Amino acid sequence: MPVIQVTMSVGRSVEQKRELVEVLTKESARILGTKEESIRILIYEVSKENWGNAGILGLDMK
Amino acid sequence: MPVIQVTMSVGRSVEQKRELVEVLTKESARILGTKEESIRILIYEVSKENWGNAGILGLDMK
Amino acid sequence: MPVIQVTMSVGRSVEQKRELVEVLTKESARILGTKEESIRILIYEVSKENWGNAGILGLDMK
Amino acid sequence: MPVIQVTMSVGRSVEQKRELVEVLTKESARILGTKEESIRILIYEVSKENWGNAGILGLDMK
Amino acid sequence: MPVIQVTMSVGRSVEQKRELVEVLTKESARILGTKEESIRILIYEVSKENWGNAGILGLDMK
Amino acid sequence: MPVIQVTMSVGRSVEQKRELVEVLTKESARILGTKEESIRILIYEVSKENWGNAGILGLDMK
Repeated sequence: MPVIQVTMSVGRSVEQKRELVEVLTKESARILGTKEESIRILIYEVSKENWGNAGILGLDMK
Repeated sequence: MPVIQVTMSVGRSVEQKRELVEVLTKESARILGTKEESIRILIYEVSKENWGNAGILGLDMK
Repeated sequence: MPVIQVTMSVGRSVEQKRELVEVLTKESARILGTKEESIRILIYEVSKENWGNAGILGLDMK
Repeated sequence: MPVIQVTMSVGRSVEQKRELVEVLTKESARILGTKEESIRILIYEVSKENWGNAGILGLDMK
Repeated sequence: MPVIQVTMSVGRSVEQKRELVEVLTKESARILGTKEESIRILIYEVSKENWGNAGILGLDMK
Repeated sequence: MPVIQVTMSVGRSVEQKRELVEVLTKESARILGTKEESIRILIYEVSKENWGNAGILGLDMK
């Protein structure tokens, strides 16, 4: 029953999300020894003003 | 102090969310033996391109 | 595909968890207009030293 | 490697988020005895119809 | 800055977790076009009495 | 209604957790312009074999 939650910056294409769901499901099922049918993936997109690293807002990086 | 986080597809009405918050709070408080005042509910809405089941993107289902 | 994540203090019985899973699933499916089969529930138990309210650690309450 | 996830109502300014990321990182690193570089913060904004307290939808409060 | 959170049943070996972290990081970086260094993975293990599917507690399945 | 969820390695003392809850609550309330009473903090502790950075399991670092 693995549930995989991915939080990432907005802006990825549907193609990237489709491949992400397909590959993460396949690889997790293989490694964990569980059926692909039991794996659920949730993607949360956050804008650059909604995450920070080392105390710096994503918006201010680079 | 239960915190209940619901992740679901976008598109439910305010009436559905209102009932969801009311009923999940009441039932959880009853079952867990805690006060309704201590229960907090958070709803995260994700679009069909942001979740997958069995390796298939929600967008591509059926 | 609703995923419901409940974070609560440790110490509830299996009977309480069983009823929680049963009732939250049934009520959510009814309110959201989705099948019970599509609902997954995850319970995270935290000890009293691992949550706080209003700046006070659960361990120090009352 | 602390990951801090903040769920809050929409509507805060970039300045507030910038200060939140800066201060939560600095204080957490100091208290936990870890480097600021290892701390990641994620902010999830939810509208007033997507959270509830004590069984009442945020939208209906006051 | 992707953060990947995996919730799964307890009982996997260190070897499985090591491969899970390695493969999910590599594949996510490739698909999302981001550096492996920026990806963080968190694993939450829950016992069979702490999750449910279709209204049935994991403990009671088959 | 901010909910702050901190995921970190196991092993911090109760004193560190008490200060973390106190300080994160006070600072978040000040920055966000909300009451301390409305802030809830949840701490999830994960062992070194349950997180990874840049594809490397915490257990294998250094």
